Amino acid sequence: MEYKTASYEKLAGELEALRSEYEKIKAEKLSLNMSRGRPCTEQLDLTEGLLSVLYKNDMCNLSGNTDVRNYGVLSGIEDIKNIFAPILGAENGEVFVGGNSSLNLMYDLVADGMLYGYEGCTPWAKLPEVKFLCPVPGYDRHFAICEKLGIRMINVPMTKTGPDMDAVEKLVAEDELIKGIWCVPKYSNPQGITYSDETVARFADLSPAAKDFRIFWDNAYVIHDLDDTPDTLAPLLVMAKKTGKQNMVFEFTSTSKITYAGAGVSFLAASADNIKTVSSRIGIRTIGYDKVNQLRHALFFKTTENVYEHMKLHAAILRPKFDIVINTLEGELESTGTASWHRPHGGYFVSLDLMPGTAKRAWQLAKEAGVVLTTVGATYPYKLDPLDSNIRIAPSNTTCEELEKAMHVLCVCAKIAAAEKLTENK
Amino acid sequence: MEYKTASYEKLAGELEALRSEYEKIKAEKLSLNMSRGRPCTEQLDLTEGLLSVLYKNDMCNLSGNTDVRNYGVLSGIEDIKNIFAPILGAENGEVFVGGNSSLNLMYDLVADGMLYGYEGCTPWAKLPEVKFLCPVPGYDRHFAICEKLGIRMINVPMTKTGPDMDAVEKLVAEDELIKGIWCVPKYSNPQGITYSDETVARFADLSPAAKDFRIFWDNAYVIHDLDDTPDTLAPLLVMAKKTGKQNMVFEFTSTSKITYAGAGVSFLAASADNIKTVSSRIGIRTIGYDKVNQLRHALFFKTTENVYEHMKLHAAILRPKFDIVINTLEGELESTGTASWHRPHGGYFVSLDLMPGTAKRAWQLAKEAGVVLTTVGATYPYKLDPLDSNIRIAPSNTTCEELEKAMHVLCVCAKIAAAEKLTENK
Repeated sequence: MEYKTASYEKLAGELEALRSEYEKIKAEKLSLNMSRGRPCTEQLDLTEGLLSVLYKNDMCNLSGNTDVRNYGVLSGIEDIKNIFAPILGAENGEVFVGGNSSLNLMYDLVADGMLYGYEGCTPWAKLPEVKFLCPVPGYDRHFAICEKLGIRMINVPMTKTGPDMDAVEKLVAEDELIKGIWCVPKYSNPQGITYSDETVARFADLSPAAKDFRIFWDNAYVIHDLDDTPDTLAPLLVMAKKTGKQNMVFEFTSTSKITYAGAGVSFLAASADNIKTVSSRIGIRTIGYDKVNQLRHALFFKTTENVYEHMKLHAAILRPKFDIVINTLEGELESTGTASWHRPHGGYFVSLDLMPGTAKRAWQLAKEAGVVLTTVGATYPYKLDPLDSNIRIAPSNTTCEELEKAMHVLCVCAKIAAAEKLTENK
Repeated sequence: MEYKTASYEKLAGELEALRSEYEKIKAEKLSLNMSRGRPCTEQLDLTEGLLSVLYKNDMCNLSGNTDVRNYGVLSGIEDIKNIFAPILGAENGEVFVGGNSSLNLMYDLVADGMLYGYEGCTPWAKLPEVKFLCPVPGYDRHFAICEKLGIRMINVPMTKTGPDMDAVEKLVAEDELIKGIWCVPKYSNPQGITYSDETVARFADLSPAAKDFRIFWDNAYVIHDLDDTPDTLAPLLVMAKKTGKQNMVFEFTSTSKITYAGAGVSFLAASADNIKTVSSRIGIRTIGYDKVNQLRHALFFKTTENVYEHMKLHAAILRPKFDIVINTLEGELESTGTASWHRPHGGYFVSLDLMPGTAKRAWQLAKEAGVVLTTVGATYPYKLDPLDSNIRIAPSNTTCEELEKAMHVLCVCAKIAAAEKLTENK
């Protein structure tokens, strides 16, 4: 039934039926969670070999007199750069290997902007105001960094090809206080959209008023394909080198969703100039990140090709879950005409746009029925979804059986919220 | 021969003999390094079991539904806190477990002061000036953090019982812009001095003008004893709780010199209030540090007692090296009356005070003879040793044979520099 065109009586009848269904669900006292993009145990188990692949003292001494157990080699060992630099579209010299968290690298590079600045410009903390562009919906932890540091966030709408580039180009050209933009360019969080070649080309040739503008290119899902028709993302760093604007690009990724969410290896890819600047600052923080874990990863994967092969094992676990999400949405919500979504070919999320003004209510109903979803608003700066519409679905860390149940609950709650809204003023 | 009281002729003769000895040394084309406190391979090899102690998927699931491979548990797992909290004189709830680098925790907490402040006071970056007290000689990486962040460093002399507390008390009471002090309270870097009970008691009851003053208590060598008469350090955090000034204390340590210098686990011990503040800020940076490595350490050591036992294995390797350093200094330099040093009962360094005005020259001579020492001045803020006197000796990462040679070279160079100085104006 198409809700918006249905008669009051029909909708009221539907609402009654839905409420009855909802009461039955509540009686089941469920406890399900689709709130965070956590890998499931089955995925974590794929990497058992990583635990013990490096097991002997004499395996720790690399050529070039580097003992991974000791201090030194600030930017990371070549063995791991050899494998992951090609994935990032970078040369080894353009890669800095971090600790277990690419988020931490991102935070540090924004904080460096605040404290030291870039390109010899004024440190951002000394400016009257600093602003970042935030394509929305987006990743809550990016927004949290800006909020904590007092960086004003400006929403830019996402389109099917990435951020609205007309808006981005105009804003950065006009305002020197705009110092950065957050991007998840492949299988975006939460929508699963991959930026088009044209979008990436426009990023590579961006002309910001701020000389020290930086694109925070969080390529978290760079090889996280789900099916046989994966998206492809144009290589920003390579393209920016052609326009001579390579210093604008900070590209990040990690093995958090390749090996272990809590114990992987993170990477920064950037121009040689930027790597030099960043290294001189990180070298004040630490003598180096965990090279034993870097070597462990290098020994486990051996080649770039093997990393891609490994991702197929993840896809085999995740794909059925994404199918359940999409199939349930299609089966239960499509006919109501109240919601929309994108079927992603990779990544960790499905973004569900409910009828404006109903997301919080649907979330609350789901919560009371024992299904925890990402807080409404979390996908927007300042936790403020202006339309009260967007819900992020994270299907990875539930079983298929749980997920079927949870998705059904979500659809019932979404329909109740929509039917309530449409009947309340009639 | 006592240099300062020797006749010009005697000293000139000595210098000639030393120069002849020096030329012979140079002909050997040595390549020896005593510049950094790096553990040697034999020490790193002690921990082989750590590499493979955690080898199976089902070992990664702790009680309480914590999978160490996944996201979460920001402040670290209880298993590792159980072992190390007692070493820090802290409750589990007063411990935050970091990544592989306690230096990184220290940097982050100073940077947090700059960006966010403490105790609700003005962020330090917004003040006209911020100052830290630096007991000298001290640790170059502490000073580098302040220098990078533009924090003005004020030297405070070290005594045999720790920093000159009269000076510390007076300075912090008078100047609200003094926001912190760097301390290596046990086996200080570089002197190997342990703060006396009275010194620690005075720290625990310090009354700074700045409400947001912090003691950066870098307890890097907390259990790093070398012999059977180790120093004991009073527990600052416990004592500060008694004076009600516990929020003043940030205590750090790591397993960098217990397990692996590049792949250990770091710890912050602080008041419950501070842990709450710090966690809320670190939680913006990262979803959590490497818990797999935390569990690896917990499984390897099992108990606090075993950590102490393990340190005896390190001591057995290091003690002969420290003996060589001290014996060579006593045998070759003592009679000249131009140098002084302290025989430490633990830690990683011997601090050698040469005749004022001769350290750089001795360093340069040693370098030209193939012996690399920590750069003169590195043990002082702004790399400026006002007396040109202090040389830090790091004996850990050389063989005993190399060390005997290197120490002899150093002594010859120190004597040449002193004899040159004493004869130049006669």
